[in-house]
Amino acid sequence: MTPSSGHPATVVIDVPEQSLYGTGNLPYGVFSPLGGAPRAGVRIGDWVLDLAVLLDDDVFTEPTLNAFMAQGHQRWAEVRTRIQQAVAGPVPGKAVHAHEAVRMHLPFAVADYVDFYASEHHARNVGRIFRPTAEPLLPNWRRLPIGYHGRAGTVIVSGTGITRPRGQRKEPAADQPTYGDSHRLDIEAEVGFVVGTGSSLGVPVPSTDFSQHVFGVVLVNDWSARDIQAWEYMPLGPFLGKSFATSVSPWIVPLQALEAARVPGVAQDPQPLPYLREEQPWGLDIQMSITWNGHEVSRPPYRTMYWSPSQMLAHMTANGARLRTGDLYASGTVSGPDVAERGSFIELTWNGSEPVQVGRQTRRFLEDGDEVVITATAPGCGGNRVGFGEVRGRVGRSVCGSFSL
Amino acid sequence: MTPSSGHPATVVIDVPEQSLYGTGNLPYGVFSPLGGAPRAGVRIGDWVLDLAVLLDDDVFTEPTLNAFMAQGHQRWAEVRTRIQQAVAGPVPGKAVHAHEAVRMHLPFAVADYVDFYASEHHARNVGRIFRPTAEPLLPNWRRLPIGYHGRAGTVIVSGTGITRPRGQRKEPAADQPTYGDSHRLDIEAEVGFVVGTGSSLGVPVPSTDFSQHVFGVVLVNDWSARDIQAWEYMPLGPFLGKSFATSVSPWIVPLQALEAARVPGVAQDPQPLPYLREEQPWGLDIQMSITWNGHEVSRPPYRTMYWSPSQMLAHMTANGARLRTGDLYASGTVSGPDVAERGSFIELTWNGSEPVQVGRQTRRFLEDGDEVVITATAPGCGGNRVGFGEVRGRVGRSVCGSFSL
Repeated sequence: MTPSSGHPATVVIDVPEQSLYGTGNLPYGVFSPLGGAPRAGVRIGDWVLDLAVLLDDDVFTEPTLNAFMAQGHQRWAEVRTRIQQAVAGPVPGKAVHAHEAVRMHLPFAVADYVDFYASEHHARNVGRIFRPTAEPLLPNWRRLPIGYHGRAGTVIVSGTGITRPRGQRKEPAADQPTYGDSHRLDIEAEVGFVVGTGSSLGVPVPSTDFSQHVFGVVLVNDWSARDIQAWEYMPLGPFLGKSFATSVSPWIVPLQALEAARVPGVAQDPQPLPYLREEQPWGLDIQMSITWNGHEVSRPPYRTMYWSPSQMLAHMTANGARLRTGDLYASGTVSGPDVAERGSFIELTWNGSEPVQVGRQTRRFLEDGDEVVITATAPGCGGNRVGFGEVRGRVGRSVCGSFSL
Repeated sequence: MTPSSGHPATVVIDVPEQSLYGTGNLPYGVFSPLGGAPRAGVRIGDWVLDLAVLLDDDVFTEPTLNAFMAQGHQRWAEVRTRIQQAVAGPVPGKAVHAHEAVRMHLPFAVADYVDFYASEHHARNVGRIFRPTAEPLLPNWRRLPIGYHGRAGTVIVSGTGITRPRGQRKEPAADQPTYGDSHRLDIEAEVGFVVGTGSSLGVPVPSTDFSQHVFGVVLVNDWSARDIQAWEYMPLGPFLGKSFATSVSPWIVPLQALEAARVPGVAQDPQPLPYLREEQPWGLDIQMSITWNGHEVSRPPYRTMYWSPSQMLAHMTANGARLRTGDLYASGTVSGPDVAERGSFIELTWNGSEPVQVGRQTRRFLEDGDEVVITATAPGCGGNRVGFGEVRGRVGRSVCGSFSL
């Protein structure tokens, strides 16, 4: 059926069997219908359901999901069940919007944003590129999930234009740095974890509490200006090379939708310290895809990550740092062992020395007008797959403050 | 006069001539009277004035200053003038609270927190301690203000207890890291700049727009666990060594109160790139003091900082990163050229190798029960000095999640 513009009193939602957005997924987002204010929705098939209408609950009229996320994991489970029950029968016509007719917004107000470095393949590639004669992994890498804080204020929703960043950079052969457009603009395909309920200052969160705190999962493109980053990062880490934009997918896939995607974790050697140890080490079988101007250039497999999502959470709070509703922590670039599984272009093109074919053109780094889309799916219940919302971004240039392509 | 508990209809505020909180200062904070809700106040002498009552304006009933700060610098100037006019005559008795009778809160909701590294003396000391045989300043240090993002969610107000952080650290001689209490807990005395009005994504903020965006100045203690930091920071910078707590003073001193504190900036060589160049390089003559268990151990002079507050702002946004109301950026440790001007204990004790005298005891790093207070003053108008609220913190230990000394 097609809900008509006349809002029939009730409609029955019909979802194709192979849909990535079946009743086993039900990701949350914030949308606005034409001319309307942002409000919470859930995606099912090609439809977006207005949760405030569907469930008659004012928390879903907020312009972010934060208030709902703060209600805790029992409430999340309860709402999920209520949605599943509601869509099994007829739903109010005015709760139903066509996905292509709504505008998606950043689904949550980002509190703190932390970016990890949890792929061994990525860390080894980067180590080999920058320190070709040395051991690629630093001594701390297998002992703890390396991470750092990023800029929460420039986390943006998929579809927002990416202004090519300017900054200070120095060519290795040059005497002096210069300021100007980044010439080595890159992506990092990552998976992000959205914190729903916070924790107390001074009290570490054990890895076993993961599902009590983490509300769901998004895809992340951590845009990176490699020339700016290379010049600035010693000794305090990445700053302006990353802080201009971090894109996230508009749909937060609930943890419950990913139960069938849980897989055994990769072997960890040496054994982690007790605060990072898990009884059942686990990972997530999220299969990512990166397209560059419409051509798929890589398929990063999240199941190959070294550090697990719950280990990252335990580490991030091991010093007593508190969590807040809206904290986002991302995995770092997802790279698998194969060339066609690398999650950044600096790896795919080996620092620009091995251009890749993008349709009929070749590329080293991003050019103006280029568009990158990251998508992913994971095993769902009943043999169906669960889809993540895409992360799309097109690179433009700022002219006197206005964005142009 | 002393406003009595009976709230006389009007009272005249009498401020001693030498007060650090005269009408040339008027810092903003958020306070709660006994049993009352947090609301905006201004400090004058030993009194806190309730701004919502004094100015009959609802924006000051908010539990943070963010809504007021977002109104922009013309409004800030107008409110300051109105306060100065109001306190020149009798004010409503119910607007007046004794400073010692109110509780102070975090004055603003922190959006992003950035920490710089703008003192050359500090950077050289740290370089000499960690790389004794190499050139202490890295090649990028004089080219750009090095900085990184910290954890906004653990910025806390003065007086909040500091739970000794636990974490992973490795002694240089040890084979393996261990997890436990930090044994090298340190402070960093800094000056912080609070952003009032935001900016647009993709548009750098020039250094000349500093006073349009920055609302005021606080003192910062960037507590640092040196053992955790040393093991984790390669290659992505400080993370858990810093993210457990960052204390700020409860009073935001407005920029206008610091006009007499502006001094010429220190000479910069090489000349900065145009985006960091200033027609009139400037600094702030803020004289800081650090006491350890009541004994003054250092007097860091902010006027010796290499990079200026407006250069840090211009750099932070040079890549197009936007500002938001509530952004906090701190200077990094303020250290002067003399030993007794060093702003961290790792410098004062030369990495623990030269213990300092703290009253009748000696200290290398912070012990449980130790208390650190950072204060500062600056030249004000008419020969008076302007005081900053103190940043106080006492180190305790977490026992099953409860704080104890």
